[in-house]
Amino acid sequence: MVAPLKVGIAGLGTVGAEVVRLIETQARVLSGRSGRGIRVVAVTARSKAKKRGIDLRGVEWAKDPMALATHPEVDCFVELMGGAGDPALSAVEAALNAGKSVVTANKALLAKHGLKLAKAAEKHGGALNFEAAVGAAIPVIKTLREGLAGTGINRVYGILNGTCNYILTRMEQEGLSFAECLKDAQRLGYAEANPSFDVDGHDTAQKLAILASLAFGTKVAQGAVYVEGISSIAPEDLRAADDLGYRLKLLGVAVRTAKGIEQRVHPTMVPKSSSIAQVMGVTNAVTIDGEGIPPITLVGPGAGGAATASAVVADIADVARGIRANPFGRPIAQLHETKKAPMERHEGGYYIRLLARDFPGTAARIATRLAEQKISIESIVQRHPNGGAAPADGKAVPVPVILITYATHEDAVRRALAAVQKDKVISGRPQVIRIEKN
Amino acid sequence: MVAPLKVGIAGLGTVGAEVVRLIETQARVLSGRSGRGIRVVAVTARSKAKKRGIDLRGVEWAKDPMALATHPEVDCFVELMGGAGDPALSAVEAALNAGKSVVTANKALLAKHGLKLAKAAEKHGGALNFEAAVGAAIPVIKTLREGLAGTGINRVYGILNGTCNYILTRMEQEGLSFAECLKDAQRLGYAEANPSFDVDGHDTAQKLAILASLAFGTKVAQGAVYVEGISSIAPEDLRAADDLGYRLKLLGVAVRTAKGIEQRVHPTMVPKSSSIAQVMGVTNAVTIDGEGIPPITLVGPGAGGAATASAVVADIADVARGIRANPFGRPIAQLHETKKAPMERHEGGYYIRLLARDFPGTAARIATRLAEQKISIESIVQRHPNGGAAPADGKAVPVPVILITYATHEDAVRRALAAVQKDKVISGRPQVIRIEKN
Repeated sequence: MVAPLKVGIAGLGTVGAEVVRLIETQARVLSGRSGRGIRVVAVTARSKAKKRGIDLRGVEWAKDPMALATHPEVDCFVELMGGAGDPALSAVEAALNAGKSVVTANKALLAKHGLKLAKAAEKHGGALNFEAAVGAAIPVIKTLREGLAGTGINRVYGILNGTCNYILTRMEQEGLSFAECLKDAQRLGYAEANPSFDVDGHDTAQKLAILASLAFGTKVAQGAVYVEGISSIAPEDLRAADDLGYRLKLLGVAVRTAKGIEQRVHPTMVPKSSSIAQVMGVTNAVTIDGEGIPPITLVGPGAGGAATASAVVADIADVARGIRANPFGRPIAQLHETKKAPMERHEGGYYIRLLARDFPGTAARIATRLAEQKISIESIVQRHPNGGAAPADGKAVPVPVILITYATHEDAVRRALAAVQKDKVISGRPQVIRIEKN
Repeated sequence: MVAPLKVGIAGLGTVGAEVVRLIETQARVLSGRSGRGIRVVAVTARSKAKKRGIDLRGVEWAKDPMALATHPEVDCFVELMGGAGDPALSAVEAALNAGKSVVTANKALLAKHGLKLAKAAEKHGGALNFEAAVGAAIPVIKTLREGLAGTGINRVYGILNGTCNYILTRMEQEGLSFAECLKDAQRLGYAEANPSFDVDGHDTAQKLAILASLAFGTKVAQGAVYVEGISSIAPEDLRAADDLGYRLKLLGVAVRTAKGIEQRVHPTMVPKSSSIAQVMGVTNAVTIDGEGIPPITLVGPGAGGAATASAVVADIADVARGIRANPFGRPIAQLHETKKAPMERHEGGYYIRLLARDFPGTAARIATRLAEQKISIESIVQRHPNGGAAPADGKAVPVPVILITYATHEDAVRRALAAVQKDKVISGRPQVIRIEKN
């Protein structure tokens, strides 16, 4: 029997403690699957005194992450502290430079420094595994890195943030406002006190940058992702989506286009019949379009201590089995530069919601402005707020108008709407939501 | 650079030809991902003369599968002939006994001889990979074998046969009979001229036996699977399912129970809100319930040349990378015997459809018979065929009665229905369909 793999764990929050517990309780299955034992030999965390409900007798307490990362007894350094900077960054780098393998759940670190870390792993021969960084226990990293090794990929897209999907689901099902649903999500622990990282799309962008690198061989770069959050979404958008056969989701989309790899995060209309449209609440999902094959969709918990720990332990088991994959699927030399998607050149259908000041004349004007930009309209819906009856005071009430366009360029849409606004025939700013076809 | 992996392919149908094509067109990505080249050095098939649209210049034509399997130049034998017996069986065995790795898409071979083949792989150190055998390009084997390596599994279930799901989807959406939909499926190439293997559940059973072994460490054994097909399903069952909040799917279910591992294939009512219920047409899906984590569902094409070839090539790439997993996730010594699930001890909810001869008296009688067996009724629906109006001739017309039970034992249901039949208050045989909760 080979000597057991000796693991050091930095960070003993919910995930870290669950990893310790799984390694102990699943020892027999793990050694059966890996061909060798797995043993936690040292740990570190901010507070040594904290009660965690796990047995750490016989496990060394390292004085800090760096000491653990370079500990001579540790074969595999497990980083569960989080954060794109130190101490996580320097500890992970030190472990890789010492030829150790690293397992991490840290999407921020990978989105920002993934390339540098992958270089260190490649140079010194250690593994750099991060299944838990995207979609927790959903095996999306493994699927892109290994499961579709021989298949060209055209598009990867998904619901990568449970907070946003929870909010959009509640808004859709109960007709509530964004603010109300956010408050509920905070109360239930699905959203942070400062929700911006989630609801403004940055969490999704970090995860998407990682998936894009694996799918397309781009150098992982969060800055290359176009990002729009969900705070402008109104209940009427969700109602209109439903009427028109769509659901509204915050998607991260990475897609091969004639102009290069487009990476974008934004509220998106998806056909109700698509697998991704069925995903409700905090659940995550990723769809992969491989060349010549129908889409593959992976659905499951995108967060949570047990789900994240499950992925971390599977990554450790891969290290134990001696698997050394290229962190981003290809050797560093084969990864190529990523440019930020020029969204003005994005091609697709659009949902546009306007408040027309005086319907008959306005409709004609909007149609003209769209036609000037060669935008074809697939459908147009308008609903008089009070069933079409003239208001008692005789004043014109703004009428919501909803347009669905055929595929067009985003700059055409922007130009047409700027012209409409200049015409002063609408109230407020138009709502524009991209449509993603399956 | 390491020497390329030399591959021999037996069977050059749609899948085999696509594998040859992918290895050539994806050469750069494959060698980037695997760290070495992959080269097809020899092939064999029934007809050498057949046009296949692939370039086989420079590739040796082996005289038969056995010659290819034992060819000194071949490192990895790819078996795409199909069939549980020879020539596939003896060729795969010979390759493994010669220390070569084997990649196969042959579910029948694995369901029947998987244990013996895994033993040969374990003894001689070759890999035995079969991602394509279940759910084609859906990475379910890899997910069970590696992705959930440290997570205990409570249940695996799925839609594993596209033919059946296509038929049930058409029946549901168009109110057609089983026979009509089968005929259409045959016309469209989704069903064989002799459809029994698919519609009677045997294809699903073979795949389920493989999944159960990976999930629970059982010795793979098709004979341990209880099997029921879909030919008795009537349009009224699909209508009733819809009314009651369910969809009807042919599921393969492997589940850990107090009495051991239950493996069963049968038409199943699944809650409309479950991920599996959303899967329509020829698409396949598998849901995995891990201990302490929400379900993970993998959805995608379960068949087709390109999807199957994608999985075969990924398996070859794993061999090239030097990955040697235990074929069924654990060493042979850790696999345990499987007993056939005693379905009379199955516990769950039931859907029962009866034709009551004379409604008021019959309902009371049925209720009594169920109560005698301590079966609680969750709901009861009856619809008079002509809106409740008495038929013109005054004769009693049989009335369909649909019952949903709370969880109970199957033998209790069988005893209750036998008593009802003996009472002669119903016409024909009762329809009984198991309910699977998510």
